Amino acid sequence: MYDVAIIGKGPAGISAAINSYARGKKAIIFGGDSKKVLLSPIIDNYPALPGITGVNFMEALNNHLSKTDVVISDKSVLTIYAMGESFTIQAQDEMIQAKKVILATGVNFKKTIENEDKFLGLGVSYCATCDAPLYRNKTVCVVGYNDEAVTDANFLSTLCEKVYFVPMTNVKDKSFNDNIEIITGVPKSFEGNMKADKLNLKDSSIECDGYFIIKDSYPLSSLVPGLELDGPHVKVNKNMETNIKGLFASGDITGKPYQLAKAVGEGQIAALYEHES
Amino acid sequence: MYDVAIIGKGPAGISAAINSYARGKKAIIFGGDSKKVLLSPIIDNYPALPGITGVNFMEALNNHLSKTDVVISDKSVLTIYAMGESFTIQAQDEMIQAKKVILATGVNFKKTIENEDKFLGLGVSYCATCDAPLYRNKTVCVVGYNDEAVTDANFLSTLCEKVYFVPMTNVKDKSFNDNIEIITGVPKSFEGNMKADKLNLKDSSIECDGYFIIKDSYPLSSLVPGLELDGPHVKVNKNMETNIKGLFASGDITGKPYQLAKAVGEGQIAALYEHES
Ligand SMILES: Cc1cc2nc3c(=O)[nH]c(=O)nc-3n(C[C@H](O)[C@H](O)[C@H](O)COP(=O)(O)OP(=O)(O)OC[C@H]3O[C@@H](n4cnc5c(N)ncnc54)[C@H](O)[C@@H]3O)c2cc1C
Ligand SMILES: Cc1cc2nc3c(=O)[nH]c(=O)nc-3n(C[C@H](O)[C@H](O)[C@H](O)COP(=O)(O)OP(=O)(O)OC[C@H]3O[C@@H](n4cnc5c(N)ncnc54)[C@H](O)[C@@H]3O)c2cc1C
Repeated sequence: MYDVAIIGKGPAGISAAINSYARGKKAIIFGGDSKKVLLSPIIDNYPALPGITGVNFMEALNNHLSKTDVVISDKSVLTIYAMGESFTIQAQDEMIQAKKVILATGVNFKKTIENEDKFLGLGVSYCATCDAPLYRNKTVCVVGYNDEAVTDANFLSTLCEKVYFVPMTNVKDKSFNDNIEIITGVPKSFEGNMKADKLNLKDSSIECDGYFIIKDSYPLSSLVPGLELDGPHVKVNKNMETNIKGLFASGDITGKPYQLAKAVGEGQIAALYEHES
Repeated sequence: MYDVAIIGKGPAGISAAINSYARGKKAIIFGGDSKKVLLSPIIDNYPALPGITGVNFMEALNNHLSKTDVVISDKSVLTIYAMGESFTIQAQDEMIQAKKVILATGVNFKKTIENEDKFLGLGVSYCATCDAPLYRNKTVCVVGYNDEAVTDANFLSTLCEKVYFVPMTNVKDKSFNDNIEIITGVPKSFEGNMKADKLNLKDSSIECDGYFIIKDSYPLSSLVPGLELDGPHVKVNKNMETNIKGLFASGDITGKPYQLAKAVGEGQIAALYEHES
């Protein structure tokens, strides 16, 4: 059982991790490096580090994190279940327990595919390693938003008869197993009755047994069932507490301004706040 | 007229200054270096700068500030008057105007002297340069909490007949003019009817015409008349707005945790927030 699980390895999550460690907590942090930080050309408003590049800032954050004993997992978290006194966190194929959870997943304005949420668990899955066994010798489709999607498609192709791959990034230099067919097109909606039967693209459609959507972040509604939102953001009070006891949020996910200093400040508040229970 | 005046040159104030500059605002920042930062032996939880000393951190903040065109004044602010659409700020003997004010004065749990607030402006003053002319050829008393108090006492002694000096810091290596008498003792209370007539110390008392209290920070009630507090802190909403339109607060002054990352985050939010008016 961890004292704290931190979801997202951007500035807010790393600040939460460093501050949890400073308080002697046993902590774990999930996710890859922040793409937003890596994409920042020059950062001029993070106090005490004028003119640092995004790449150097991410390196400095990771270096700071490496001086702690916080456990680092590059897995994506799919679902967080509130169990009353603790949480169960599903990170791809792994389950871990923590007393406190800090969401620091950034903002994500990517549209979901129509009916994606409706059919989640009913033919639509976010996790290849978790759900591949259900589709042995069957036909599946992977909608891939990142590099892991390519790995997942190749893995699925070893179990499934056929895999369709709809790339949402450039995959020209990637190699795919022979029973993978690349379909280019923009996914629009899922159709079906009891389960997803068909994926409609802009100009075509795919019918198969299961659909995998592999991306870096997931809709908050499926990430934390029951989480109270405020528009596209998570609703928090000044201690960064959400409506779910023991669940905190920090960084871009709590609202504007979308900025680094705000993110590290909120990560710290979330980490240091102790319940009065 | 400045767009923004920032009161306090600690981490919260410097973050507010850097971010005001980033938005193209004409800004001024008041106060000396943060003693709290300078006193921190090793800072281990400011993200991206592991293990930095307080002295080096303050230097890095000042270096960052020097890359902006924010006007830097080492004067202490005595009173902020809300004038409706703008503010008038009294910084010792100087008056400036600003459209927006950000308080970043840190927390201050130093007790005031009993009746200090009651007699402020009635024989009790926080500003030697402002009020010295009132006491020409008279006898005054200076209660001194910092080095400026010594300078102020020497200045007053050139106008006044006699100056009593009650040191609250070590002044062994300081030189005083001849008509200054050092009184050691702990100030307890002011007594008087229409104005302060007497300062009671623990085991003695001083009677003179005027009393100067020279320190780094002043009670919030006299700094900003009408400011809504929450215990020892300033009450703010999530945009760091106080109850007074255009007046913001950030850093330790808004509440716990008393920490650097929180302070810079809040300074940023206060600086970037624009009214909807
Ligand atoms: C081009 C650009 C320039 C910028 N310039 C500046 C600037 O100069 N100054 C400034 O202050 N700000 C700047 N920003 C904004 C700044 O990058 C963000 O405010 C900051 O990164 C927010 O931090 P965060 O930790 O909240 O979220 P993010 O940095 O977005 O990090 C969230 C992390 O969580 C991960 N994640 C999401 N979902 C999951 C999941 N389910 N499981 C595991 N991990 C997950 C993501 O992959 C990501 O790594 C810039 C942004 C961009 C895009
Ligand atoms: C020994 C020590 C160690 C610490 N270690 C850490 C640590 O490791 N990590 C961490 O995160 N935090 C640490 N802190 C806490 C940290 O220093 C504070 O949280 C931080 O300095 C708060 O910043 P601030 O800008 O809100 O206030 P301050 O740093 O207190 O700055 C306020 C400034 O405003 C000025 N001011 C006040 N009134 C006026 C006025 N009327 N006019 C003009 N100027 C005024 C003051 O002189 C001061 O310079 C430590 C503190 C101490 C004392």
